[in-house]
Amino acid sequence: MRTVVQKYGGTSLGDTNRIKDIARKICDKRNQGTRMVVVVSAMGKTTDSLIKLANDLSLAPRDYEMDLLMAAGEQISAALVAIALSEIGCEAIGLTGPQAGIYTTDKHTKARIEDINIGYIEKNLNDNKVVVVAGFQGVAKDGSITTLGRGGSDTTAVAIAAKLGAECEIFTDVDGIYTTDPRMFPEAQKLQHISYEEMLEMASLGAGVMHSRSIELAQKYRIPIYVGSSSDVVGGTIIKEQDETMEERAVTGLSLSDEDLMITIGRFPYNPKLISSLFLELADQEINVDMISQTAPQNNNISISFTAPVSEHKNIINIVNKYKEHYQLDIDIDMDITKVSVVGIGMRSQSGVAASIFKIFAENDIQYKQVTTSEIRITFTIDRKDKEKAVKLIATGFNL
Amino acid sequence: MRTVVQKYGGTSLGDTNRIKDIARKICDKRNQGTRMVVVVSAMGKTTDSLIKLANDLSLAPRDYEMDLLMAAGEQISAALVAIALSEIGCEAIGLTGPQAGIYTTDKHTKARIEDINIGYIEKNLNDNKVVVVAGFQGVAKDGSITTLGRGGSDTTAVAIAAKLGAECEIFTDVDGIYTTDPRMFPEAQKLQHISYEEMLEMASLGAGVMHSRSIELAQKYRIPIYVGSSSDVVGGTIIKEQDETMEERAVTGLSLSDEDLMITIGRFPYNPKLISSLFLELADQEINVDMISQTAPQNNNISISFTAPVSEHKNIINIVNKYKEHYQLDIDIDMDITKVSVVGIGMRSQSGVAASIFKIFAENDIQYKQVTTSEIRITFTIDRKDKEKAVKLIATGFNL
Repeated sequence: MRTVVQKYGGTSLGDTNRIKDIARKICDKRNQGTRMVVVVSAMGKTTDSLIKLANDLSLAPRDYEMDLLMAAGEQISAALVAIALSEIGCEAIGLTGPQAGIYTTDKHTKARIEDINIGYIEKNLNDNKVVVVAGFQGVAKDGSITTLGRGGSDTTAVAIAAKLGAECEIFTDVDGIYTTDPRMFPEAQKLQHISYEEMLEMASLGAGVMHSRSIELAQKYRIPIYVGSSSDVVGGTIIKEQDETMEERAVTGLSLSDEDLMITIGRFPYNPKLISSLFLELADQEINVDMISQTAPQNNNISISFTAPVSEHKNIINIVNKYKEHYQLDIDIDMDITKVSVVGIGMRSQSGVAASIFKIFAENDIQYKQVTTSEIRITFTIDRKDKEKAVKLIATGFNL
Repeated sequence: MRTVVQKYGGTSLGDTNRIKDIARKICDKRNQGTRMVVVVSAMGKTTDSLIKLANDLSLAPRDYEMDLLMAAGEQISAALVAIALSEIGCEAIGLTGPQAGIYTTDKHTKARIEDINIGYIEKNLNDNKVVVVAGFQGVAKDGSITTLGRGGSDTTAVAIAAKLGAECEIFTDVDGIYTTDPRMFPEAQKLQHISYEEMLEMASLGAGVMHSRSIELAQKYRIPIYVGSSSDVVGGTIIKEQDETMEERAVTGLSLSDEDLMITIGRFPYNPKLISSLFLELADQEINVDMISQTAPQNNNISISFTAPVSEHKNIINIVNKYKEHYQLDIDIDMDITKVSVVGIGMRSQSGVAASIFKIFAENDIQYKQVTTSEIRITFTIDRKDKEKAVKLIATGFNL
């Protein structure tokens, strides 16, 4: 029998009427003979109001307690969706992440799934129940409740699908993956398919729809993911392995991120051990450093720039300041940057994409600060004020 | 070192300012060298709003999911109180009931604590942490989350105190135990002490302040309980074993309950097996039947009355109706009754209390429907319309 893992985001669960709508959809699919696991986020504004309560009490609540607090949001959703399903005659059971057997690392607020003890979910599926799992959460070895960080419910859904060998459907408030953000460039096109690799590049660069961890996981276990609107059952985008049915466009998508800051350190002593110790310290705090660019040494000093999430602002400053004091460095932090990335699996075989973008920027007086490339992606850091101009020019230039 | 288990009710945790006040009090006590466990209820209106969400989705949500839903409320409180404590430099850890090792029966929405694996709480106390435990909840053998029913957080607190050999302090929105409800009879006196037995009789009869299960537990393990207002640290009532320091009043208190209905079954075939099967069925549903009164058989038929919680209305009707159809019984359900109980350990040695009340009722035209007695209690069922009159007369008559 076919097994499907569906995930519903907070907007889809905004109120009890929406929950009833979703329950009907789930029930229909179950009645067509599909075994169903449903992963749920916290309802609409629940997470925000829990965070507000915590911040009223403390500017720096412990991550351990934040996880205990936040996990309640998804637990409430799981209970309510199971109640709505039972009400329409669809046998269901709600489970917390720990009850669903989701074991994680102990890194609170950004734990990673280590294993899923899938037995209890399977038992309930075999009992013909729809299994409703609180997303975003799990349990560490010491029994403490953990959460998986941004996009965590998607990760929960993909991980369960991988373990069950099931299909995965992510229902969200957008109706699919677009070549670029349609709010900024209304001519943007919705993609029917996108490869894991392309989606991964777009996601890690702020495409917003899905986070990279869940896509990595899907890619590893070859789980196709359908991404679409919860008010539609068709018309979304399928993220899957690149195959011959998918057109190799030079540029599939353009994504933007305003969620990074750029740090530039001047007069950094050229000492590979020192550089590595800085980045190790950032990694220890699970700060995702990106776009590292470094000049060649001059007078045994180098200059180094990198981007990192604005959300980690305080942590980053603390770490960087230690080095600043010790080595008397020049440190500049630029909060007003945007990362612009163009992604396309066709870049592997088609050259000239970088050159075209350099040309567009030069002709239109857009200055870029950094540029990095991968096999299927080129990313520029630009001033945030140039963002819209850059998107329009690139999207038009590459017919997105 | 002294160990104290404190419990704070929902009103005391109504908003973040109140939580801050409570945190300061807990911290002060800890700093005086007391090891502290704090048991918390859900914040103010949380439980009501969760129930409303469930009822928007279903008129009869499964108990399993109600527990999953409700438990989130206390979990949120535990996280927030621990956050507030850490913020003022008082090391703390928040725990759910399951994490605190509270094992219960699997009777959802009214589970009973079977055992507490106290190791994890003790470990954290030994690490000098204030341990904040989500009250009202536990875990059944199958790993499902359970709740303990009304007064459940008190039960959690007393059970943990019993296991730790600690003192127990219940902070609530009243400032102690009164001889009778001061809202109805303003001259009511606050008691400095009350024995477990008296409190048990008053609690089981709706004194409202504490539920009988927690008092039973305290009595069993000889844990004295302080009951008082969270805005005061002194001036409450201590519930403890009767000893020579406590005056033996004939009547210590008067309590009222509007939370019962009275069922009268006429023409019930006099067959002890049948009667016992009815009451067994009610017990199986954990319906607390009280005040059973039965007439002597006439024409091999009896008439039987009993009271039971209004909250179990539907369950009771379902069970009783089966018998009604099968044996063509006359069944009358009276929803407008009040149970009036007078309690006093002195009744054991001082006679005449019942006679005095019969006299008061007769002289003032109050009709009673049932009367039952225990060694230290007399309870009458009366029409609810006579409630205030009865309270004033009895309280004045016995100088309460």
